Amino acid sequence: MIYFDNGATSFPKPAMVKNAADEYFYKYGGNPGRGGYTLSVKTAEKIFEVRTKLKNMFKTDNEENIIFTYNCTDACNMVINGYLKKGDHAIISDMEHNAVARPIYRLAKEGIITYDVAETFENDNLTVESIKSKMRSNTKLVITTHASNVLGKVMPIEKIGKACHDNDILYMVDGAQSGGLLPIDMKKYCIDFLCLAGHKSLLGTTGVGVLITDKGELLKPARVGGTGSMSFSLDYPDFTPDRLECGTVNTLGIMCLGGGLDYINKVGMNRIYEHEMKLAQNLYDIISRNKNIIIYSDYPKIGEAMPMVTFNVKGIYSEDLCAKLGDKGFCLRGGLHCSPLAHKKAGTSDYGAVRAVFGCFNNKDEVLKLGKLLEKN
Amino acid sequence: MIYFDNGATSFPKPAMVKNAADEYFYKYGGNPGRGGYTLSVKTAEKIFEVRTKLKNMFKTDNEENIIFTYNCTDACNMVINGYLKKGDHAIISDMEHNAVARPIYRLAKEGIITYDVAETFENDNLTVESIKSKMRSNTKLVITTHASNVLGKVMPIEKIGKACHDNDILYMVDGAQSGGLLPIDMKKYCIDFLCLAGHKSLLGTTGVGVLITDKGELLKPARVGGTGSMSFSLDYPDFTPDRLECGTVNTLGIMCLGGGLDYINKVGMNRIYEHEMKLAQNLYDIISRNKNIIIYSDYPKIGEAMPMVTFNVKGIYSEDLCAKLGDKGFCLRGGLHCSPLAHKKAGTSDYGAVRAVFGCFNNKDEVLKLGKLLEKN
Repeated sequence: MIYFDNGATSFPKPAMVKNAADEYFYKYGGNPGRGGYTLSVKTAEKIFEVRTKLKNMFKTDNEENIIFTYNCTDACNMVINGYLKKGDHAIISDMEHNAVARPIYRLAKEGIITYDVAETFENDNLTVESIKSKMRSNTKLVITTHASNVLGKVMPIEKIGKACHDNDILYMVDGAQSGGLLPIDMKKYCIDFLCLAGHKSLLGTTGVGVLITDKGELLKPARVGGTGSMSFSLDYPDFTPDRLECGTVNTLGIMCLGGGLDYINKVGMNRIYEHEMKLAQNLYDIISRNKNIIIYSDYPKIGEAMPMVTFNVKGIYSEDLCAKLGDKGFCLRGGLHCSPLAHKKAGTSDYGAVRAVFGCFNNKDEVLKLGKLLEKN
Repeated sequence: MIYFDNGATSFPKPAMVKNAADEYFYKYGGNPGRGGYTLSVKTAEKIFEVRTKLKNMFKTDNEENIIFTYNCTDACNMVINGYLKKGDHAIISDMEHNAVARPIYRLAKEGIITYDVAETFENDNLTVESIKSKMRSNTKLVITTHASNVLGKVMPIEKIGKACHDNDILYMVDGAQSGGLLPIDMKKYCIDFLCLAGHKSLLGTTGVGVLITDKGELLKPARVGGTGSMSFSLDYPDFTPDRLECGTVNTLGIMCLGGGLDYINKVGMNRIYEHEMKLAQNLYDIISRNKNIIIYSDYPKIGEAMPMVTFNVKGIYSEDLCAKLGDKGFCLRGGLHCSPLAHKKAGTSDYGAVRAVFGCFNNKDEVLKLGKLLEKN
């Protein structure tokens, strides 16, 4: 089996992640923050350590700014549904995943907000101008993905963040694809809300998303319940992370995420990125010579793209091609990747497209095998 | 270490659960429903198997009625916030956990709903009458826990369910403590919404709650996003489970829950329950002879209570006693257990109480050791 669907979830996981899972079962299986005995306290300390690792990686001030969620979609919804109010206006890019597009669309359909979709461009300055041109007096939130899950393009988030803050607008970044692979400095980039998936480039397991924000008090919680704090009160706590984390957190998943962060820190984020980008460049170079293949993603240039090649073989539905490749042991995802906006932009709404996303455990030999197979089409 | 905090989370987990986690890492690490290749399809099949197991255990018609959530609190909020509308009235029992009480209280505080707290009694018929007496023409939902997480009392959910349906009111049961330990027949008991925690008596890991309902179409989703279905549309799917499950589900956690269900089915739910109840009876018998100890929970009688003993040593704050017991290696939880309503009823709002909840891997020797230690107090 050759796995090129790291945009859906990374596979396999580093041994450090598996070890963290083992530790949950044997050493840290208590309910954190719910007991004063050693097992519970030690588990709570482990969870706190992961908050610290995230704090350091994404440059936020306090561990309290780290909110563990169910998945990145949950984190996106916490911000969108929790922050936007009646009469507000929001701006999203034309590259957004349904995790952003669907909640925004729903709020608009319900007559709560209005929104605009800003066109993005190859030229970063044009993208920033495009977003600025959509700003209105009631614009409260700009949302862009950091990197498209369909076309791989990295967005100029630092410039967009600055434009947002210059206009007193909060900025949310969907880092589902990029978090753990591209450096994100929340302070420097003026990011107010950063939404992450634990199981993609952060190399953890499923069931953990992360919302990082120092503005958690602005979000009306999507759900309330037991927090292990202020238990005497039927009011929920007003402080983070408790305000936004209710019920038992995913201890196992958070520990696995800790293992993923350790792996990234040990190997080096940039080294992982460059390794994966070389593989993407290899595949791009091979299939761009094939006249039967149309490539939609940008050339995987360091700093400007994700380690991703999105393409079609002329005359074959993307999902049919994936099935054919699947028969030969290759794991690639076709269809629309939950991102109808980006596929509309690419002109692939009807056929979808085949997407190869490389992971840290892929190698050149695997890429050459796929290249060879695609040559026959 | 002797672990008696199975009401917070069960520990340790059965080997079958650990094995399921290992399988995730090596064999089923794909993103289910997001790809047509074998790894993704096989993972989706595994997830579906767990739906089938839950369907069979809790007697619902279809796998589509099984909604995987972040935790039981998430499931409770999905129902409460998703179903109740402006002007509706709800009834909760005086035993509810903050996972129910806080969202209900919030909706009332916001002026959306009104609610009543129905008193519960030792006598089941009185409890049912108490709930019926609170019913009004605009009562849309009755919520009771199946078994109190503080006092252990099992509620007459079958009788309450019938009373609800006789009055055209939907019934939600919080099965956080009981699910996996006491039989729950959703059809027979007239339960419309059953909320479960995966990591307690269901013996799975954290990060997985379950909502079982054949009325999912009545719930406005708390969050929307990518579902891997209808990806071309910015509208979210109207069918379950997709309607209520967005973003990547917790594959690892769901597989572990499958392992927990396998263990319960293999050993037998009733056998596990009887084993744990014997231990609770042992402890009750020992400490009820101690005049320095006040017991708040009912005598753990089969079918009427959970395997739980809740008590205080006179003159010692519950959390101080837990700390002292913790120093000797015992894991018990003091304080309010996120259930201020039940503690108010027990008269323990000020001191909290010490709670021992037994699990399938506890044994009599451990209970005797605790009993001996408590004798010295």
